Amino acid sequence: MLNKVSQRIMERVLELSQNNLDENKVPIAAVIFDPQAKKIISEAKNTDDPLGHAEMHAIRKATKKLKQDRLNGLDIYVTIEPCPMCAYAISKVNLTKVYFGCEDQKGGGIFNGVKVYSNSNIWKPEVISHVYESESRNLIQQFFKNKRKNKAL
Amino acid sequence: MLNKVSQRIMERVLELSQNNLDENKVPIAAVIFDPQAKKIISEAKNTDDPLGHAEMHAIRKATKKLKQDRLNGLDIYVTIEPCPMCAYAISKVNLTKVYFGCEDQKGGGIFNGVKVYSNSNIWKPEVISHVYESESRNLIQQFFKNKRKNKAL
Repeated sequence: MLNKVSQRIMERVLELSQNNLDENKVPIAAVIFDPQAKKIISEAKNTDDPLGHAEMHAIRKATKKLKQDRLNGLDIYVTIEPCPMCAYAISKVNLTKVYFGCEDQKGGGIFNGVKVYSNSNIWKPEVISHVYESESRNLIQQFFKNKRKNKAL
Repeated sequence: MLNKVSQRIMERVLELSQNNLDENKVPIAAVIFDPQAKKIISEAKNTDDPLGHAEMHAIRKATKKLKQDRLNGLDIYVTIEPCPMCAYAISKVNLTKVYFGCEDQKGGGIFNGVKVYSNSNIWKPEVISHVYESESRNLIQQFFKNKRKNKAL
């Protein structure tokens, strides 16, 4: 069971995702959190550019803010399973844990696709998955439902 | 054999890499090229931030410049085998061909590591590897040699 602090951070991720959904944007967000200091280091939402994934923005913000290249000891919370690009970026900056909501069978890169952390040569974060799973999945499904509806109009 | 145009583009990549080396920065660069129009669309060098790979910068510049999310028909030239993050980014924007100099057995993501393009579900660019291989490898080796020398001083 997720502890209260982690629950609150994941709820923040869902709230940011909902904000994006309200603007017809991909409802994916990421929060980088310091579990020792109990402090949010950075927050980000998916943006419209093709490489504009929330995880990439959150990592860039955190490394800039802390003026360090490695984020050991910090955790990242994401709406959905990170893609291979983001999974590798998470490893590159040595984040300690990855929490995510629902799996992404088509685009995911941790449990699905090339399973980036199956490579024994790289930094492997601890993965805590299926956190607020139905809430996360509902957001993503709602986005695609809206998209289809807008197309049909 | 590489045609004259591709040779010139790869030489430009090596020149940009050399510029970075001269400033004690990682000697990796990327050029996105339109082979139909015979026109360079974007150029980039590795930057100091941990996600600041040349390929990411070059893709972001090209999608912004052309105001399009997909780069079908364009090719990317890189000093060294792209890492999994960049290999996936290249796939995500549908680049047609990837040319690179030397393999990266530790950090590469095409022939090495998780071999991102082994996933049958994603866009697969054509890969033209080992182009100006010794020149590329020399640049990378020189960087690490300088680094060791500076450390020893």
